[in-house]
Amino acid sequence: METIKDYISANKDRFLNELIDLLKIPSISADPAYAKDVLKTAQMVQQALENAGCDHTEICETKGYPVVFGEKIIDPNLPTVLVYGHYDVQPPDPMNLWTSPPFEPVIKKTELHPEGAIFARGACDDKGQMYMHVKAIEFMIKNDVLPCNVKVMIEGEEEVGSDSLADFLEDNKEKLKNDIILISDTGMIANDVPSITTGLRGLSYVEVEVTGPNRDLHSGIYGGAVPNPINVLSKMIASLHDENGKITVAHFYDKVEEVSAEERAEMAKAPFNLEEYKKALDIGNVQGEEGYSTSERYSIRPTLDVNGIWGGYTGEGAKTVIASKAYAKISMRLVPHQDPDEITELFAKHFKALAPDSVKVKVTPHHGGLPYVTNMDSIGYQAASKAYEHTFGKTPIPERTGGSIPIVALFEQVLGSKTILMGFGLDSDAIHSPNEHFGVWNYLKGIETIPYFYKYFTQLSRQ
Amino acid sequence: METIKDYISANKDRFLNELIDLLKIPSISADPAYAKDVLKTAQMVQQALENAGCDHTEICETKGYPVVFGEKIIDPNLPTVLVYGHYDVQPPDPMNLWTSPPFEPVIKKTELHPEGAIFARGACDDKGQMYMHVKAIEFMIKNDVLPCNVKVMIEGEEEVGSDSLADFLEDNKEKLKNDIILISDTGMIANDVPSITTGLRGLSYVEVEVTGPNRDLHSGIYGGAVPNPINVLSKMIASLHDENGKITVAHFYDKVEEVSAEERAEMAKAPFNLEEYKKALDIGNVQGEEGYSTSERYSIRPTLDVNGIWGGYTGEGAKTVIASKAYAKISMRLVPHQDPDEITELFAKHFKALAPDSVKVKVTPHHGGLPYVTNMDSIGYQAASKAYEHTFGKTPIPERTGGSIPIVALFEQVLGSKTILMGFGLDSDAIHSPNEHFGVWNYLKGIETIPYFYKYFTQLSRQ
Repeated sequence: METIKDYISANKDRFLNELIDLLKIPSISADPAYAKDVLKTAQMVQQALENAGCDHTEICETKGYPVVFGEKIIDPNLPTVLVYGHYDVQPPDPMNLWTSPPFEPVIKKTELHPEGAIFARGACDDKGQMYMHVKAIEFMIKNDVLPCNVKVMIEGEEEVGSDSLADFLEDNKEKLKNDIILISDTGMIANDVPSITTGLRGLSYVEVEVTGPNRDLHSGIYGGAVPNPINVLSKMIASLHDENGKITVAHFYDKVEEVSAEERAEMAKAPFNLEEYKKALDIGNVQGEEGYSTSERYSIRPTLDVNGIWGGYTGEGAKTVIASKAYAKISMRLVPHQDPDEITELFAKHFKALAPDSVKVKVTPHHGGLPYVTNMDSIGYQAASKAYEHTFGKTPIPERTGGSIPIVALFEQVLGSKTILMGFGLDSDAIHSPNEHFGVWNYLKGIETIPYFYKYFTQLSRQ
Repeated sequence: METIKDYISANKDRFLNELIDLLKIPSISADPAYAKDVLKTAQMVQQALENAGCDHTEICETKGYPVVFGEKIIDPNLPTVLVYGHYDVQPPDPMNLWTSPPFEPVIKKTELHPEGAIFARGACDDKGQMYMHVKAIEFMIKNDVLPCNVKVMIEGEEEVGSDSLADFLEDNKEKLKNDIILISDTGMIANDVPSITTGLRGLSYVEVEVTGPNRDLHSGIYGGAVPNPINVLSKMIASLHDENGKITVAHFYDKVEEVSAEERAEMAKAPFNLEEYKKALDIGNVQGEEGYSTSERYSIRPTLDVNGIWGGYTGEGAKTVIASKAYAKISMRLVPHQDPDEITELFAKHFKALAPDSVKVKVTPHHGGLPYVTNMDSIGYQAASKAYEHTFGKTPIPERTGGSIPIVALFEQVLGSKTILMGFGLDSDAIHSPNEHFGVWNYLKGIETIPYFYKYFTQLSRQ
């Protein structure tokens, strides 16, 4: 029997080229102008599952973009792994900061990726990481070493909040029935420091609109006498944190899980160099909640960040206008046991109360997600840990990361199964940023590691 | 001798038609596509000055659009009035809000203009107001009642910053030599409340840039641990005003002229209805510096307003990004005796000092202008006041307006003479906005009033 290593050696170029073809299609779910490309990508993913050897593949319509489904059932009595991924990508803006066009993938060497990395929007998040599974499944089916059943569900709305997924899960509980869910949409600490994400932050994302005068005004004639919505919004945003970096929204921290000193000590073992961190980001200093380390601030603590702000004249040169409206997009990362809907409501109430009587304020919820924690004692976690040990030669570190994959909590609620997050990207891969990339080594290491998860998971399930 | 009233009666239709012809040419200085139209308008203005009876007219080339010059010198020993105006207009955008095409002038009745108003871009600002002077001069020359010398200087770059004017003034000091400058490029309070603008605010306009991390980051992975430039900028902007609405920039108020209680009492006589003001702008309340009335806030007090802000993701939907940079355009309206260059420097110093050590800050000056005040005791002001008394039957109210006409300060610096601002438009005439218009009554009232200024100014100059 061909080993996975041999199979990768023999097919490496094809694996890369197939991914590159997938990356060429701008499947930007946030922008309706790319609807055709998103749909085309769904078809390509279906074809890829077909080619990998799935018995049944399907493009499942939803009220939004479709979910691509595929499966290989070898024996109903064996366990079933459900793979989740997404084929949509973030918008590439700001375009001018890309060193090569976001949808013309190229392989370039970097300091952290001496064997080269594929530069393209979606290279890591999530086309590249999703495609590792397709290729690992291909290996197992073609070589007849698939030890259990596998189902694959790849959606096209992850970057815009997975709006159709809840309905899809509810409507397809039987079809999606599984023993464990496997996702590669996170990262690991370093190529020589494998890690498994055990905790994810939740999310509450809102858009706010502050209206001053009913039309744009001349700042000479009205300036100083009327509420300027940009100044007002700035002041409201400024007041959302106190001098210790704590969020001032009333009752915001009420349900926050206080992580034990023991667990904080365990987490502190992960390698972290503050000077290198600052240097890599070229920042004069870090900034955050008093009383917590940098890695705690982005993992076990909730946060509030403005993700976008706009209002008034933003073109070349000077225009002396007082805008009628100013806007901001604001997101809060949540930790166990904060509830996104409740937090959104607390925020809206607080934000409206902040506004002076001179302006009108609107708060529109965008989307939210529950925080999530995986138990390290579960056979899913143990199987993943053994898979990494086999291919990396090291026990992976359990890691709580700051990002949110709201669907992980949803999966548990609707499908009743736990999720294992096996991420092979690096923090420096610039997902959601210009010059997103994914190491060729990481891509192939993912393909190599995944089959071992199936092997150990099936073994541990039998015990 | 024909009186000005008789002359207007006899020539009213011609006066309107000549202005309408001038308004048909889209002399948009901001858009190079209209360069030919701008130049054609200059030629029409020269021809109009010729027709009015000027001895000498000329199109004076500059590095930008030309200045049209004309003069009628009747006796070198008599005083000389220099009229300034501009023949260029603002772009008409947004086009879809015009109820009739901006360059197809039509006369329509409005609530405030029961005798009709000419609707067209430039009707009030400044073709209509400039042409009042041409017609008043025509009357005085044709009827041999011009009591002094007159020079006319009409430029074509006022709407784009009068870039060539400083050089033109420097190069033509002798040609432009005068005793008083007369401009109609402002408004008056109402048709039954004549007013003369005595003060204009100055301007310091800057753009600021706050840089956090060296690239856009995923807010889940980095949020809470790194400086978010939008949050930081918001906080910096918020701190630019204290709780009393005072600007916190150090030494900002050091040179501000404190207007006397007497002058404030005089100004307070201008009709102002706070409830109507709030209703017209649909604001819940006014907002500004404690201790000053609304009309004082926009006239005799300096202000700071954000004119534009942008950063991060501003498109549809949600993107969980921490931006690398955030920007704002900030302008300060200045009052006597604040110096725009000095204020810009104070601002830059203060703003940079505000920044936490986690970010980098850049402040770029855009442009500035000196504030200006006309002394009510001057013979120029007295002559204008008597002219209004004669034709309106009321003493005009001295008014300080919030806008800036930087060239007025420039005239004083280079030519050494004071300016009288006799404006006949209304605030509601929608200059710089869709549906700009100028009352037929106002146009003719201006033509009627101007000759009296010449009469009284010459008389008062002799005393």
